Amino acid sequence: MTQNVFAENYADRAAGFRPSPVRSVWDVSTAPGMISLAGGNPDLHGLPLEQLALAAQRLIGEQGLDSLQYGSGAGLPELREAVTAIMAYSGVQASADDVLITPGSQMGLELVTAMFCNPGDVILAEAPTYVGAISTFVGLEAEVCHVECDDDGLIPEELEARITHLKAEGRAVKFLYTIPNFNNPSGVRLAQDRRERIARICANAGVIVVEDDPYGLISFDGQVTPAIRSFDSNVIYLGSMSKIFSPGIRVGWVLAPADVRARLQLLSEAMVIHPSILSQYLALEYLTAFDWRATLARSIERYRERASALLESLSRSEGVLPAGSTWTKARGGFFVWATLPQGYSADELFELAVEEGVVFIPGSAFFADGSGSRSLRLSFSLESPEAIREGMRRLARASRRLTPRYELVSG
Amino acid sequence: MTQNVFAENYADRAAGFRPSPVRSVWDVSTAPGMISLAGGNPDLHGLPLEQLALAAQRLIGEQGLDSLQYGSGAGLPELREAVTAIMAYSGVQASADDVLITPGSQMGLELVTAMFCNPGDVILAEAPTYVGAISTFVGLEAEVCHVECDDDGLIPEELEARITHLKAEGRAVKFLYTIPNFNNPSGVRLAQDRRERIARICANAGVIVVEDDPYGLISFDGQVTPAIRSFDSNVIYLGSMSKIFSPGIRVGWVLAPADVRARLQLLSEAMVIHPSILSQYLALEYLTAFDWRATLARSIERYRERASALLESLSRSEGVLPAGSTWTKARGGFFVWATLPQGYSADELFELAVEEGVVFIPGSAFFADGSGSRSLRLSFSLESPEAIREGMRRLARASRRLTPRYELVSG
Repeated sequence: MTQNVFAENYADRAAGFRPSPVRSVWDVSTAPGMISLAGGNPDLHGLPLEQLALAAQRLIGEQGLDSLQYGSGAGLPELREAVTAIMAYSGVQASADDVLITPGSQMGLELVTAMFCNPGDVILAEAPTYVGAISTFVGLEAEVCHVECDDDGLIPEELEARITHLKAEGRAVKFLYTIPNFNNPSGVRLAQDRRERIARICANAGVIVVEDDPYGLISFDGQVTPAIRSFDSNVIYLGSMSKIFSPGIRVGWVLAPADVRARLQLLSEAMVIHPSILSQYLALEYLTAFDWRATLARSIERYRERASALLESLSRSEGVLPAGSTWTKARGGFFVWATLPQGYSADELFELAVEEGVVFIPGSAFFADGSGSRSLRLSFSLESPEAIREGMRRLARASRRLTPRYELVSG
Repeated sequence: MTQNVFAENYADRAAGFRPSPVRSVWDVSTAPGMISLAGGNPDLHGLPLEQLALAAQRLIGEQGLDSLQYGSGAGLPELREAVTAIMAYSGVQASADDVLITPGSQMGLELVTAMFCNPGDVILAEAPTYVGAISTFVGLEAEVCHVECDDDGLIPEELEARITHLKAEGRAVKFLYTIPNFNNPSGVRLAQDRRERIARICANAGVIVVEDDPYGLISFDGQVTPAIRSFDSNVIYLGSMSKIFSPGIRVGWVLAPADVRARLQLLSEAMVIHPSILSQYLALEYLTAFDWRATLARSIERYRERASALLESLSRSEGVLPAGSTWTKARGGFFVWATLPQGYSADELFELAVEEGVVFIPGSAFFADGSGSRSLRLSFSLESPEAIREGMRRLARASRRLTPRYELVSG
């Protein structure tokens, strides 16, 4: 009996936990000589590490009794204030009282999902969507329904039709989860004229909007599109320090109406007590004592060059991917989303690509329903333009070894 | 409709989230001049802050591209190894592979509870138990059943009888949650001869043991009792850096058999991706480059002096608490648990105590079933012996204003 004490006792939700495809690729991607177009890691080379190191020294040497001690469940008041200034760049007018600091925005999404979703409830999400969000939703036994997108992002008519259809079936549609800016994995930015419309569709249908915006400021043309939250103060907005500063410190936030924020804080305290105080102080220091916007602008310029290298390679006349493949044109963020013609498998391409020395994430990771098997996410955030070009040459060699499976094509 | 978009959409579990009584007392306890016997904060004055500050400087200045970047979901391999050495002091032989680093052991408990408990499942816990654990259990809609304790901790016969009774009722008893060493809030240490017996009772009944051990090393006599985990490798063990180093960095761990650890890691990745890398490196540095045992020994000596000051005050002939009150004799940890005679209310004493300038946590916070109304948790970890003696004089004044409510006594 002792042997099976665990097997007998797992909760129903345990069945949903599967290894993350991104994390599995992680191991492969760190092999010597491998070029990784897989990870979503920001490039940290532009950070003023020496000055940050001195700041960390002060935070412990002079404030250690505070920065190493327990703190507020809502987060440092000064940091809650500082992140409102970040959101202002996206047209969001927010009160620091409505901000909850979380140990990364992944935890923010966990809190929101746990707060609103019973098992079997429906969450709407872009097709494709963030793999980590799918993990959160599946872990809480919610059902993900994807909504069709085009080059301008989520299609409002599709969203409205999907809500109507699901409600007619008696389903509890709790919220729309959307990454409107330079979506992970598609790289697409939701057109400005669709934002207010999507907010209105959801409000009219009694569906909450959860706007996840880690990439909003990573815009290659310098234009920051107003957040959906700027059109409707009931939108729950998730922010992150991961792409504009550091993912390793795990600092993100949730902006929500006061009553919702208060409830989320209670749940956060039950889960983690509070986020790392040291991390919060370091984030605060970075936002207030450094010219972080200038540093970010230089990083964005690097991301832009890398995106160009990737897109130029994809467009070469000889072709990196099989003829008939399509891909998104990243204007910000970290990703390009490519789709192979009918009959091709991105999983097969992945196996060949690893042999050639380049990795990406196969597209099915970004769908909860098993689709995406012809697509791939190509990340350009971490490798140099030269490495990206070499990676694309390797991908081209892998592509040429790929055989279409016409027998699998029905149409 | 927009106004009610949240009210209409809360999940069932949202009803269970109540403000933590400890957090509410927090606000009162920070008032000027207030003496706090409420918090469970460790005393950080003994930490080598200047050297730690230099370590933090190096971690960012020389390793910033690593310490500020994404990392492993399981935690830093070196830290997973380092914490096995901490557990060895409690007689636990563990492999680093079976360790999952978490952003605080609160998150470890969240992961374990989510992994094993469906709504309505039963968790056994000491009477009284950690208020934060109750929040976690209630948040996941598990039901807490308290098991009677005496001065030697959890009573094995009571545990066995309770399991038998609950199983006869058809209840799913998933795990025993226990803080065997210097229990929060009771301060009691589980007798060594009960440990193996409790492990066997649970194993025979197919009930998992979750051993939460933040205070194991905070032993005033220097004796560290072997952990329950040392008698049964199926025990899930929760460890924490909060009381032996820093709570603010949020670093804890779960030790669990390999298959369980792997599943918990997937859930952890879905919730937080990974704990702060900077925090993990700082914890690793503290455990490997500092004589942390000597620093801890000095802190323990301070805690011992404070516990003595508190216990001596309680034992004065004129009495701090009403005649007939009882209290535990802390031999480690941070807490003394006192119980007033029949007819007295600790909530009423709390109100009077605040007026007199001293705070504690009323006992009902530490029960899921509404009991504990005559008890109070007195923490001695943070105030000086002088402040504790003054606090106890204030508590004595509050006690003298307390009126027994004989009309409420039935027996």
